[in-house]
Amino acid sequence: MPPQQARTLRDLLDDDDLRGLQEWLAEHQPYEIADELARADEVEAVLLFRLLDKDRALTVFEELEPTDQHKVLSGLRDTAFRDVVEQMDPDDRARLLGEAPAKFARHVLAGLSPHERALTAALLGYPEHSVGRYMSPETVAVRFHVTAEQALAVVRSRGAHAETVYTLPVIDDRRCFLGTVSLRDLVLSPPERPVSEIVDRDRPHVHATDDVEEAARLMQDTNVLALPVTDSENRVLGLLTIDDAVEVIEAADTEDIARQSASAPWSGHYMSAGVVELARSRAVWLLLLIVAATLTVNVLQVFEDTLASVTALALFIPLLVGTGGNAGAQAATAAVRALAVGEVRSRDVLRVAWRECRVGLVLGAMLAVVALLIGALVVNVTVAASVAVSLVIVCAWAATIGSTMPLLAKRIGIDPAVISAPLVTTLVDATGLIIYFLVAQLVFGL
Amino acid sequence: MPPQQARTLRDLLDDDDLRGLQEWLAEHQPYEIADELARADEVEAVLLFRLLDKDRALTVFEELEPTDQHKVLSGLRDTAFRDVVEQMDPDDRARLLGEAPAKFARHVLAGLSPHERALTAALLGYPEHSVGRYMSPETVAVRFHVTAEQALAVVRSRGAHAETVYTLPVIDDRRCFLGTVSLRDLVLSPPERPVSEIVDRDRPHVHATDDVEEAARLMQDTNVLALPVTDSENRVLGLLTIDDAVEVIEAADTEDIARQSASAPWSGHYMSAGVVELARSRAVWLLLLIVAATLTVNVLQVFEDTLASVTALALFIPLLVGTGGNAGAQAATAAVRALAVGEVRSRDVLRVAWRECRVGLVLGAMLAVVALLIGALVVNVTVAASVAVSLVIVCAWAATIGSTMPLLAKRIGIDPAVISAPLVTTLVDATGLIIYFLVAQLVFGL
Repeated sequence: MPPQQARTLRDLLDDDDLRGLQEWLAEHQPYEIADELARADEVEAVLLFRLLDKDRALTVFEELEPTDQHKVLSGLRDTAFRDVVEQMDPDDRARLLGEAPAKFARHVLAGLSPHERALTAALLGYPEHSVGRYMSPETVAVRFHVTAEQALAVVRSRGAHAETVYTLPVIDDRRCFLGTVSLRDLVLSPPERPVSEIVDRDRPHVHATDDVEEAARLMQDTNVLALPVTDSENRVLGLLTIDDAVEVIEAADTEDIARQSASAPWSGHYMSAGVVELARSRAVWLLLLIVAATLTVNVLQVFEDTLASVTALALFIPLLVGTGGNAGAQAATAAVRALAVGEVRSRDVLRVAWRECRVGLVLGAMLAVVALLIGALVVNVTVAASVAVSLVIVCAWAATIGSTMPLLAKRIGIDPAVISAPLVTTLVDATGLIIYFLVAQLVFGL
Repeated sequence: MPPQQARTLRDLLDDDDLRGLQEWLAEHQPYEIADELARADEVEAVLLFRLLDKDRALTVFEELEPTDQHKVLSGLRDTAFRDVVEQMDPDDRARLLGEAPAKFARHVLAGLSPHERALTAALLGYPEHSVGRYMSPETVAVRFHVTAEQALAVVRSRGAHAETVYTLPVIDDRRCFLGTVSLRDLVLSPPERPVSEIVDRDRPHVHATDDVEEAARLMQDTNVLALPVTDSENRVLGLLTIDDAVEVIEAADTEDIARQSASAPWSGHYMSAGVVELARSRAVWLLLLIVAATLTVNVLQVFEDTLASVTALALFIPLLVGTGGNAGAQAATAAVRALAVGEVRSRDVLRVAWRECRVGLVLGAMLAVVALLIGALVVNVTVAASVAVSLVIVCAWAATIGSTMPLLAKRIGIDPAVISAPLVTTLVDATGLIIYFLVAQLVFGL
């Protein structure tokens, strides 16, 4: 018999080797197991999940995306199901329910203890993508008139159930938010020092209805481990913790990257997404783009006589529109990212346009030299000259359009990531062809 | 005189209104000031920086990217310069020096106290993109045989200078790493409980020479606030903290996004990058792509006779290669992202190829119907049929190639993000044209 280590999880699953699977599970970290669960089909995922001991099962479960949690829960029997859900953190549970069908959500809420149900339901009241959906309601707040020692006693008595005790909201007698104190400052301060002297009143805080991505980026900019969340009356509702903020930022980046290639973002694991699901996430944009590309057919029809008299011009169409598209895509991607991380604002549009126009001219001039050489070698100098001159204009035009469209989209309230590279490419294609044929008509004296 | 609030920083700078600038600085958060410094030119950046009081100046400075830190430091006079550098965290300083010219680095190291210089120099010994460059060497380690109360006393006496005290490495008598204990567990444990009973031995740790992006993603997967860093003899060198890990992940995402549009990543702020710098980050790829695009010229030359006899075929060239490129770009972007976040491994290549091929067929069939309608309306049914049939084949081919190239790149040790959408598009262009003309020759019986 070969040694166990040499056999992959796939082999063990195919052999239904329960002993081997248990050993494999014991040897791997929860996040590695979660990754394999996400890649497995429903039956295998549930089998693996049931082989985990209770404590580890919960840790693994919390690592899963909501769609994969759903997959596992659907396959468990009722009691096991309720146990898992009851032990999840309320914010994770709210996210799971937010993505589940209504019948499933009712089923889960019915299985909870009244206290747990109240916490989850409170979180569910906030709109999608709001801080309220992601915050941890179980926090330890301290009153401003106690001493550091008394505050530490509060942490000792109530800290076991809180998600974090490193950032403690400080409240006044009316339970209004005053600022935060860190556990570090409490531990390092003399015991008798009042909290009112060590409270940090300048730390940012957010409202439960604020956008969660902006809150997460604020945490990243200010290097805090947790951000207090308040209601409209300035009362503390919970904390947004850094681990949840990192997930939010990563999900937003994944979404932006998907949008950049003109795909709709989908939730869940790449390997567990089906053919139809993937096709659906890409179909709408491909359809819109092919309709937009009809414009290139119309443009070419207008210049059909020029094309018929100098067929060699057709040879360079893919090279010219391709290069223009690439230059536009580069500028658009840079602008979308700069907007996402807050380096550029929509009112910078004129400065950005002027700079990218010059970048495009520099790049176009460089490419024109190359195109002139290639064109002269492969076809003839006249065609090559038309291509070279067109490239300079097309690159400047593409970089300007590509960089300003995301900023203008943001200004009129559209997600700038929608201005994807393929969208810019398609729009630049049609205008690039117009430029090319007008230049060619001048060069050939048609 | 109009109220101060209505005047922007730009106005204040243009008027040289020092009082107004000081008020503006007092009203804004360090990260907002850092953002403005990055956007300002050198003279203005130094002016703003000098107007900050000493404590806030350091906080603002640490928020800046190394290139912008460099800009501010170059403009300060020597004593002020040394003060700022001396007070930076050693890991931030190491990163600043890592990006600065050698003369500048020597100048900075010379200005440091021996203790500070030793810390920085130790960090500088690690290769770029290694954990060693990003870790915080100033940590509080506790010995495994002390009690929780004694460990807390260690934190109180030495914690003031450490970057974090929430995760404490636990060491044995030979100073070897055993595991970690959290400040939370120390505070919540009975005072007399030995650390050896509460130490968590299962938490992951990394070597100083490990890749920092992998370490950061490991932190994200395991939800830890700090990751112990050890040397080859298992001795504790420092901690990688979550705020540095978030910066690493964001920088890696920004880099991947830049690569996806075939730009070289550049360090620093989008608004402070010059025209030449931006052009340089994009020039190499544009040059490579235009040379690769010469292939499309050659392909069209081969089919020049077909093109001359049916000029209408040329009308659909941009639409066909554009759509094929879009389908390929979508698949490539999805695969690159799935690799980056660890959802796919390079050995999944066959599963991915088979799935994406089917996704491409579904999408191609849908687009073929649209193309048939458009083509029949604009030109004629025979050309439309050629386009439609080609689209099905091209989309399946593009999705398969686009998704598998990043996985194959990873397998042979190339950064998969280099397989950018424009690269896939350019390669698909040439093959798409071959498919199109072969199909057209069949349809027209040429």
